[in-house]
Amino acid sequence: MPTQFDPPSGTRDFLAAEVEKRERAFAVIRSVFSRYGFEPLQTPAFERLDVLLGKYGEEGDKLIFKILRRGEHEASGEADLALRYDMTVPLARVAAAYGSQLPTPYKRYAMGPVWRADRPGRGRFREFVQCDLDTLGSTSVLADAEVICAVHDTLAGLGVADFRILLNSRHVLAGLLEAFGVPGELGPGVLITLDKLDKLSPAEVAAELTERGLASSTAEDLVSAMTAPDADERIRAALKPSEEGAAGLEEVDQVLSLVTAQIPAGRIEFTPRMVRGLSYYTGPIWEVVADGVPGSISSGGRYDHLIEQLGGPDVPGTGGSLGIERILLLLPEGVPAGRPGRLDVAVTILGQEFAARAFAFAAAARRAGLRSSVYMGSSGKLGRQLKWASDQGARWALIYGRQEEEAGVVTVRDMDSGAQAVVPAGELADYLAGQAGAAPPPGAAG
Amino acid sequence: MPTQFDPPSGTRDFLAAEVEKRERAFAVIRSVFSRYGFEPLQTPAFERLDVLLGKYGEEGDKLIFKILRRGEHEASGEADLALRYDMTVPLARVAAAYGSQLPTPYKRYAMGPVWRADRPGRGRFREFVQCDLDTLGSTSVLADAEVICAVHDTLAGLGVADFRILLNSRHVLAGLLEAFGVPGELGPGVLITLDKLDKLSPAEVAAELTERGLASSTAEDLVSAMTAPDADERIRAALKPSEEGAAGLEEVDQVLSLVTAQIPAGRIEFTPRMVRGLSYYTGPIWEVVADGVPGSISSGGRYDHLIEQLGGPDVPGTGGSLGIERILLLLPEGVPAGRPGRLDVAVTILGQEFAARAFAFAAAARRAGLRSSVYMGSSGKLGRQLKWASDQGARWALIYGRQEEEAGVVTVRDMDSGAQAVVPAGELADYLAGQAGAAPPPGAAG
Repeated sequence: MPTQFDPPSGTRDFLAAEVEKRERAFAVIRSVFSRYGFEPLQTPAFERLDVLLGKYGEEGDKLIFKILRRGEHEASGEADLALRYDMTVPLARVAAAYGSQLPTPYKRYAMGPVWRADRPGRGRFREFVQCDLDTLGSTSVLADAEVICAVHDTLAGLGVADFRILLNSRHVLAGLLEAFGVPGELGPGVLITLDKLDKLSPAEVAAELTERGLASSTAEDLVSAMTAPDADERIRAALKPSEEGAAGLEEVDQVLSLVTAQIPAGRIEFTPRMVRGLSYYTGPIWEVVADGVPGSISSGGRYDHLIEQLGGPDVPGTGGSLGIERILLLLPEGVPAGRPGRLDVAVTILGQEFAARAFAFAAAARRAGLRSSVYMGSSGKLGRQLKWASDQGARWALIYGRQEEEAGVVTVRDMDSGAQAVVPAGELADYLAGQAGAAPPPGAAG
Repeated sequence: MPTQFDPPSGTRDFLAAEVEKRERAFAVIRSVFSRYGFEPLQTPAFERLDVLLGKYGEEGDKLIFKILRRGEHEASGEADLALRYDMTVPLARVAAAYGSQLPTPYKRYAMGPVWRADRPGRGRFREFVQCDLDTLGSTSVLADAEVICAVHDTLAGLGVADFRILLNSRHVLAGLLEAFGVPGELGPGVLITLDKLDKLSPAEVAAELTERGLASSTAEDLVSAMTAPDADERIRAALKPSEEGAAGLEEVDQVLSLVTAQIPAGRIEFTPRMVRGLSYYTGPIWEVVADGVPGSISSGGRYDHLIEQLGGPDVPGTGGSLGIERILLLLPEGVPAGRPGRLDVAVTILGQEFAARAFAFAAAARRAGLRSSVYMGSSGKLGRQLKWASDQGARWALIYGRQEEEAGVVTVRDMDSGAQAVVPAGELADYLAGQAGAAPPPGAAG
């Protein structure tokens, strides 16, 4: 492919097979979210620049695609708009704009492209789909548990084979710092380092904690408690004396108890060493990991002040995000929802005098719910036209020439077996519907 | 709504009901296009600036949203990318990039937002959905007729009540200029003025033609032939002596004959006064008008050199575009595909000790294909919770307190009638599925 025809760096063209695979996955997601009572929200691709700037930290601001002012202002070189960077800032704006018009709690999902001027790389794009679900306006742990259940059902519905949900709470982490006597000013740094326990060895993490100024005995106690085979028990025991730790534990256990009807045992577990990096979380936090995939395929948590920080009203919130581009890579290529190929019924045309009849046959096939089109090339030869039918992946080819015209029939050729049936022209739709029903071509759902 | 929370000028936020209405329409469109064997194509939201610049004329270039360079280049005030302005230039790029990987002919549809920095106004947006279908690589009038049939079926499938397809050909127009002796150099201007016959009176059009330099007798002959009650016959007679005119007539009649199986008589008519303004059309041209809507709701035609002009390969093409934002305004608000409201089953919680059971009941309802969620507010009062269920548009509320727990049942309240049924807890999913099946709540499809 010559470079000048490539899509811009970090973006992709999706041809038919990929669009269909992606759309099937999106349909599963929408269906599960809807069954949970989440409703869709769509906001524009761009926002006013001041709505986005300063919301993603200094590094984030650099990754925002900015849109030049127009007309006489273009020469200024200034930007006034910017492409959506995530789905959360637009949610905060919508919550501020529509306030009481929204239901309470406001359970919404948003699925669509976001744009980040990141360095493109394997699996990292500048245009990618983000898929968020959030509940605004409820402080109840029920809302946290519901989001986790919906994410679980979505991943199961998509056919993701092996995944586990890691559950923790910001209160557990605060309790841990308290229980292990970590000085207050070291807390945030210690949590950032603990977050690396899934990548670095315990010794490496302990060393980094010491570098951060933690007493080496404390660092070793902490790391050893969090990585021991009986970590769950040791951490629970350590947390009990801390008021915040005990509250966090209670929160985690409530979520675990609420989701038992929906999530099979063993698929969700209390993971005290799991520290979501983002500082805005205030309660339960979780992430989903899958075999063979580094990092998480979904994550989320409670963020009771974020919407206000982002310019919205002061409402509690909890939610999560599906790493849909990663998840799509995990899904099996096979089991396409449609017969591979573009047509069910390919209609040949053996002379322009038969063109109108061919059109009518294609229309009859479509009435039977089948994908159908006529031959549009320049060859009048049946062999060439059947080759086209085969290239299209057609299940049947229709043949109609002088002989068929005189007999008032149409010849229906089964492209797999080569068998041909002669069908009265007026009964074609019924015949095809019957054949399609007998061995349903899933393409008919197209 | 305070201005600072509005979406950017010319763009819109879509809350749930609007998203659902739009998505239902998009699903109809995709389904019809797919039955005709058109396949989806998705390209990025932005292209390299040089791919877009110079493709839409000087006025068009001014309406392109340009994206500022990033990082160290941001200060230059220069743009290197630009938001998609239509679906045709990306199609030309894709045809150049993927060439032989694409089927022949390449029948594709593209549906998604495009962005134009137009002055926003009633029904005119800066972000709006464009929906195109095109066949590249066929010179056959079959391809033109197929596009028109697909557009017809789409509009019928969407429920657009009264629409008519106006059909003409660029060759007919050239033949007309020849037949009426319009000097060659006046041709393009004369066509632009004739295009106004749907807005201006015949006298006004004749006057404008004269201003353009046409002899006033010629101007009057031309306008009178095109607006006479027997215009069809008069134009056909006038065209016969012109070779190009006769060829155009033949083309129009071929399309009319091909579509008879699909399009009811009277819904498509030869309209010699119809002149699509765009200069790139080379063969059949058409537009769809609907009662009570100014302008067209869909239009298209053959453009055998456009793809090459836009930077693609030299392939013939024909296609059309649905004015989807206008069409959406035409569609009846009623007949929502789902029960209005967010939930089918609202689960009350009469005390935190019942929360896990409530979650399990909601899960059972979802297994029955119903939209379901639990109460997440702070009130423990049944009345308040039933009010919430009602606000959600729920069909049933589930009630489970001490009494139900002891009896191993759950109370199912019909929110319309107030009638209550007592159902064994283990049979809830079956019971709800049966109730939903008995009087299907379309929301279940959600």
